[in-house]
Amino acid sequence: MKDLKNYIETNKERFLQELFELIRIPSISAKENHKQDMYKAAEWIKNSLIKSGADEAKVFDTDGHPVVFGKKIINPSLPTIMVYGHYDVQPAEPLELWTSKPFEPEVRDGKIYARGADDDKGQMFMHFKAFEYLIKTNQLPCNVKFMIEGEEEIGSPSLEKFCSQNKEMLASDVILVSDTTMLGPDIPSITTGLRGLSYCEVEVTGPNRDLHSGLYGGAVANPINILAKMIASLTDEKGNITVKGFYDDVEVISMEERKDMSRAPFKLEEYKKSLDIADVYGEEGYTTMERVGIRPSLDCNGIWGGYIEEGAKTVLPSKAYAKISMRLVPHQDSKKISELFVKHFEAIAPPYVKVKAKLLHGGEGYVSPTDTIEYQAASKALEDVYGIKPIPYRSGGSIPIISLFEKVLGIKSILMGFGLESDAIHSPNENYPLQQFYKGIEAIPYFYKHYAELKK
Amino acid sequence: MKDLKNYIETNKERFLQELFELIRIPSISAKENHKQDMYKAAEWIKNSLIKSGADEAKVFDTDGHPVVFGKKIINPSLPTIMVYGHYDVQPAEPLELWTSKPFEPEVRDGKIYARGADDDKGQMFMHFKAFEYLIKTNQLPCNVKFMIEGEEEIGSPSLEKFCSQNKEMLASDVILVSDTTMLGPDIPSITTGLRGLSYCEVEVTGPNRDLHSGLYGGAVANPINILAKMIASLTDEKGNITVKGFYDDVEVISMEERKDMSRAPFKLEEYKKSLDIADVYGEEGYTTMERVGIRPSLDCNGIWGGYIEEGAKTVLPSKAYAKISMRLVPHQDSKKISELFVKHFEAIAPPYVKVKAKLLHGGEGYVSPTDTIEYQAASKALEDVYGIKPIPYRSGGSIPIISLFEKVLGIKSILMGFGLESDAIHSPNENYPLQQFYKGIEAIPYFYKHYAELKK
Repeated sequence: MKDLKNYIETNKERFLQELFELIRIPSISAKENHKQDMYKAAEWIKNSLIKSGADEAKVFDTDGHPVVFGKKIINPSLPTIMVYGHYDVQPAEPLELWTSKPFEPEVRDGKIYARGADDDKGQMFMHFKAFEYLIKTNQLPCNVKFMIEGEEEIGSPSLEKFCSQNKEMLASDVILVSDTTMLGPDIPSITTGLRGLSYCEVEVTGPNRDLHSGLYGGAVANPINILAKMIASLTDEKGNITVKGFYDDVEVISMEERKDMSRAPFKLEEYKKSLDIADVYGEEGYTTMERVGIRPSLDCNGIWGGYIEEGAKTVLPSKAYAKISMRLVPHQDSKKISELFVKHFEAIAPPYVKVKAKLLHGGEGYVSPTDTIEYQAASKALEDVYGIKPIPYRSGGSIPIISLFEKVLGIKSILMGFGLESDAIHSPNENYPLQQFYKGIEAIPYFYKHYAELKK
Repeated sequence: MKDLKNYIETNKERFLQELFELIRIPSISAKENHKQDMYKAAEWIKNSLIKSGADEAKVFDTDGHPVVFGKKIINPSLPTIMVYGHYDVQPAEPLELWTSKPFEPEVRDGKIYARGADDDKGQMFMHFKAFEYLIKTNQLPCNVKFMIEGEEEIGSPSLEKFCSQNKEMLASDVILVSDTTMLGPDIPSITTGLRGLSYCEVEVTGPNRDLHSGLYGGAVANPINILAKMIASLTDEKGNITVKGFYDDVEVISMEERKDMSRAPFKLEEYKKSLDIADVYGEEGYTTMERVGIRPSLDCNGIWGGYIEEGAKTVLPSKAYAKISMRLVPHQDSKKISELFVKHFEAIAPPYVKVKAKLLHGGEGYVSPTDTIEYQAASKALEDVYGIKPIPYRSGGSIPIISLFEKVLGIKSILMGFGLESDAIHSPNENYPLQQFYKGIEAIPYFYKHYAELKK
């Protein structure tokens, strides 16, 4: 691509400053009191698309947070790539564990530290600047559309309706997404599988008020103790999930395919060291990569109840709560699993407590074949930049919307992500290496080029 | 007693206003940022004792919160009663469940609503006003001392040293305490047993940082899931505590004694209804009264970890915590049990997590015989006021300091409490019925009278 490296080098500081503007807007989709920030971020996205070279861009209201759509149509007979990304971020808590402020980006040791630095503001913004380069240097080889939503971190509740109602506007040949990781900074890779998700919240009620643990302890069921027993029973000693019917639809992967997957570079000792754990733990009979790639899981994402401040309060609480999510693999239906979970959780409640369980959000898994034009285009693009052929691999994460795109719009997606495992997305000190940011901007124009050529 | 009812009737509104002054000082001993309030409350106690008729009163600094001591010596050859109470209160959380503000007392339906209304500001203050009556009407039949501390709710860490260092000053014949409950507003009763306490905090660490539950879920041990399994394993299916050696020293109560105890009025259906539970739950083979009176218990008083705010955050947290306390019965040594617990908790930790367990506070149980002069004096006093003989009973609560008094000062205590089970101490909407407050002020002078007579 003509002048690509030079264009990035000349504009790199400006790219960063523009990204920082977006990061400074705390667009936390899960929190009601950030509603104004969501609009502010959507407006910013719209303006940035126009500035980067889009013919038009517009903020669309939804029942939840707005979606931004923009496009550049150079010739209707050419193929159309649609970039998907999201401007919303996860909550930043626990705040006290951040070295610098989550919404005040800071570059340290060659990395941008901030909430959203990687997921997905940083990765999404690479596309804006790669597009800008193609426009400014008159090299855009196809049409481009952008669909940037604000509800990815809460399960994209409004996007299905938005897609259904705007099929024509969104029509395109492929959806290009950077919201996943590479296996390492020098190991280009393409995500070919994602897990689905079922995320529930449960509430266990014992007595109708907080009680004195001396006057009642031992005679009245304690909802924390009971919740602990219920959670404990959700997995057995082999790491299997005990929810009835949970494994019924799980995709069976052949030993041959598993052998193929085991070729991806993975060093267990380094993995354990980087997490400071003495051992890994998971479903018996599977490797670590398989446990996150092809097997479902169940995690408590949060738990609370009783007195949780400094010191000792002798309370037997009325209520205890937990957030429990399950990662699902292909063929497991998120809605069905959520129903099985709620039913199971209510069924295992002992008679001396009351239990409520509700679904917070869910989404389906996704598998992308490697023999498609989009996979080949992504593979060539990464090879152009990194000098080696990328590895296809299955990630344990979920982008529920990807399977929705196929269902509602009939469009396949390609997951060309530049995040690293060490980016600490969803955690304190989320970061994104500058190198990944700039390499991403460099690789994306090659994808356009190869895709347009292969489509001919 | 001459003019007693009339004195109370004439001064009842003033008594209440004085108590309200004390309640308005948020003397929460567990919280570092209330240190100044502790001094303010101690000063208030000192001044109130002087105003009520004490010859002298003084605030004593300790390593923690101050102790107030006051006295009225009318004749060294007469017996001396020492009143013990505490001016510190439990934290008021969860604040959103209070109908009126916890530190702005309000009378509704004949009850004082406020943190400390009963425990122990309301009950303690009855003694100040009963003493005032005896002074003002020249009827004090013996010497009186007051020892009012500010660390009862956090396990009285400074009081042992204070007692050791001031044995002469504190010398007395009996310690009179109102910090317990009666079985009902018309069922006078005297607490003859208290449980001991061991209160620990535990921390379970999985990975060294919060992780994305999609990228790691299923492959790395989740500290909340593990903590749940560990807590679940602390009690078995019969409600027995599994900590190794836990039951070794538990006092064995004869069937005859248990039969005796079962005469105390208790209606299971009413109990369940008042707590809105479908069933009680506890150690197999014991009644509800026995479960709190003569058997030890284990309760989670608090649990927290991961994302506990609104919405869904897909985090696999680094840490999870719990506060776990055990109520102990006579012969169980609090220190020994705490050590057994910490050892057990560390021993059951699986290799893929790190565990810390520490003691927050503890104290010994207490049993008071019914054939002592102090029991007889309390029994007669309650009969004078209520017209019926009080019932001796064992409470499930703990006042660790009571056994300490016996050990360090060699003085027995008598627990003449006027609280009710419905007072919701340690809970939101703590309250104290005005009737209990005034009946207490009426009964205390009779205790003085009978005690002085029986001691002759």
